[in-house]
Amino acid sequence: MAFLFVTPTWPTALWKAAMNKVAPKLDVRIWPDGLGRVEDIEYTAAWLPPANVLKGLPNLKVIFSLGAGVDAILKDPTLPAGIPIVRVNDDDLTKRMTEYIVLHVLLHHRQQRRIDANQKQKIWDSFPTHAASALSVGIMGLGVMGQDSALRLRDLGFRVAGWSRSRKAIPGVDCFAGPSEFDAFLGRSDILISLLPATAETDGIINRGTIQKLSRKGPFVAPIIINAGRGRQQVASDILECLDSGELYAATLDVFAVEPLPADDPLWSHPRVTITPHIAADSDPEVICAYVAAQIERHQNGLPLINLVDVKRGY
Amino acid sequence: MAFLFVTPTWPTALWKAAMNKVAPKLDVRIWPDGLGRVEDIEYTAAWLPPANVLKGLPNLKVIFSLGAGVDAILKDPTLPAGIPIVRVNDDDLTKRMTEYIVLHVLLHHRQQRRIDANQKQKIWDSFPTHAASALSVGIMGLGVMGQDSALRLRDLGFRVAGWSRSRKAIPGVDCFAGPSEFDAFLGRSDILISLLPATAETDGIINRGTIQKLSRKGPFVAPIIINAGRGRQQVASDILECLDSGELYAATLDVFAVEPLPADDPLWSHPRVTITPHIAADSDPEVICAYVAAQIERHQNGLPLINLVDVKRGY
Repeated sequence: MAFLFVTPTWPTALWKAAMNKVAPKLDVRIWPDGLGRVEDIEYTAAWLPPANVLKGLPNLKVIFSLGAGVDAILKDPTLPAGIPIVRVNDDDLTKRMTEYIVLHVLLHHRQQRRIDANQKQKIWDSFPTHAASALSVGIMGLGVMGQDSALRLRDLGFRVAGWSRSRKAIPGVDCFAGPSEFDAFLGRSDILISLLPATAETDGIINRGTIQKLSRKGPFVAPIIINAGRGRQQVASDILECLDSGELYAATLDVFAVEPLPADDPLWSHPRVTITPHIAADSDPEVICAYVAAQIERHQNGLPLINLVDVKRGY
Repeated sequence: MAFLFVTPTWPTALWKAAMNKVAPKLDVRIWPDGLGRVEDIEYTAAWLPPANVLKGLPNLKVIFSLGAGVDAILKDPTLPAGIPIVRVNDDDLTKRMTEYIVLHVLLHHRQQRRIDANQKQKIWDSFPTHAASALSVGIMGLGVMGQDSALRLRDLGFRVAGWSRSRKAIPGVDCFAGPSEFDAFLGRSDILISLLPATAETDGIINRGTIQKLSRKGPFVAPIIINAGRGRQQVASDILECLDSGELYAATLDVFAVEPLPADDPLWSHPRVTITPHIAADSDPEVICAYVAAQIERHQNGLPLINLVDVKRGY
């Protein structure tokens, strides 16, 4: 039995070393150079696998999707049908996402960019600020990550709402559900956050129409967006236009339709856009490998897999 | 009966308007122009009162200290003895301080300054990061504010310790107490935070010796300090020297020995110093006025005052 990494865009030597450390007995291989006999391979962990690679593994039993989103696997047009896909849904990833969301909500709320600009000019300006309770934060996507972010923001005093496909119940958080409640959710959000999975329904969801429906009653001049979901969810040209027209105050973007973000993209240099290089919930190789190794052991002992992906739903 | 604001460095018109709004029947006066008959004045709210002003109020019954620190009152050498001083210890101030501490811990932890610098150069660099659990945060001062910050940082996954004069018990937080445990507390802190009151004991506490005792085992090259206590607690020249010698990695400073920080101070332009203009826990005039008005009503109804200052202890 062997395990294969199919992660062409990742530092595979680092990941192999991590897996060797947490599961020393596992036969770890790396596509393409360390593939070996394909018949041995029963488990694989993949991120953006090229077409026909997974299809070419005749004895594959389980596919692990590295990272919280599984779209990087599902977009393989030659993905072999019927093989269970397991989503990495580790507490470490969740906590890192929550850190990112809390950091960037507070950065906007406390106007740290304005303070940074003042420091550069040596200006001491203690302008009046508002309490967190004056600010409504709306989170699209209430999976494990969305729920954890909602709770921590709630504890800091923000008014928090969430929106998801099926209705959730989170103490102290206003939960909206489905397309019929989307506009009401937007209308009470001063800061809109996406933690949505990449699906056909969420493609382009952060567009001009969405931005125009956001709250204009909050303490900011105009609403703010934070996208830590997937890049295809945002219509970048709409974001830039809304920033320049005053319909949007600021944006923090961790994900982009094309990554790395091309050097000539106007988002890089917009004064009210914060760009982070898809690091909101960066995977810690050892933590992720330990999670994968534990699930391989469960599967070999006949125990059910955890965090199975519903391929039809897309997450 | 009248109430007097003695806040020479503050926008008093704004504060008077706030008090008129929350306590419309109260006779609100402002020193010096709106003082009126001094015999009427039974209550005062002060921040940095000039000498002899409070002494000149013959019927003064209670002094309210605006802001969480009372040193701005106690440094008046002519402060009349025996008049109770009430500290503003409002939930709003506490929450704002917690936001500030959480924001600046996360800003360092997630290396946002490095990401900011990369964005300026359009560099997409997703360097590896560590989990919050790899980082020890040490809070000096475990009053209402220190405790609230400790809990929120704990909930985000940081290893949190606190140090205070008398020992506290906070679930999930390592509590150190007194001078004998100070070095042990420093030795396990990767990020050192001051939320201490201004007293003779805390003057100059953030000096080179303290910095050298901080942890060198954390994920950063060197430790980090955040001072949201009082400016006199930091020896600015030691901080600058330790930054340049590599003994300190970065600093976030909200308070300074002289405020506003003079334009020629080298702290302004140090690349690893974040300067904020004493806004960590900025007072919301209406919230603070409501707190003061409620205490005046309690006192007039013969009920005991809350948050009385121990003048000997200094907080």
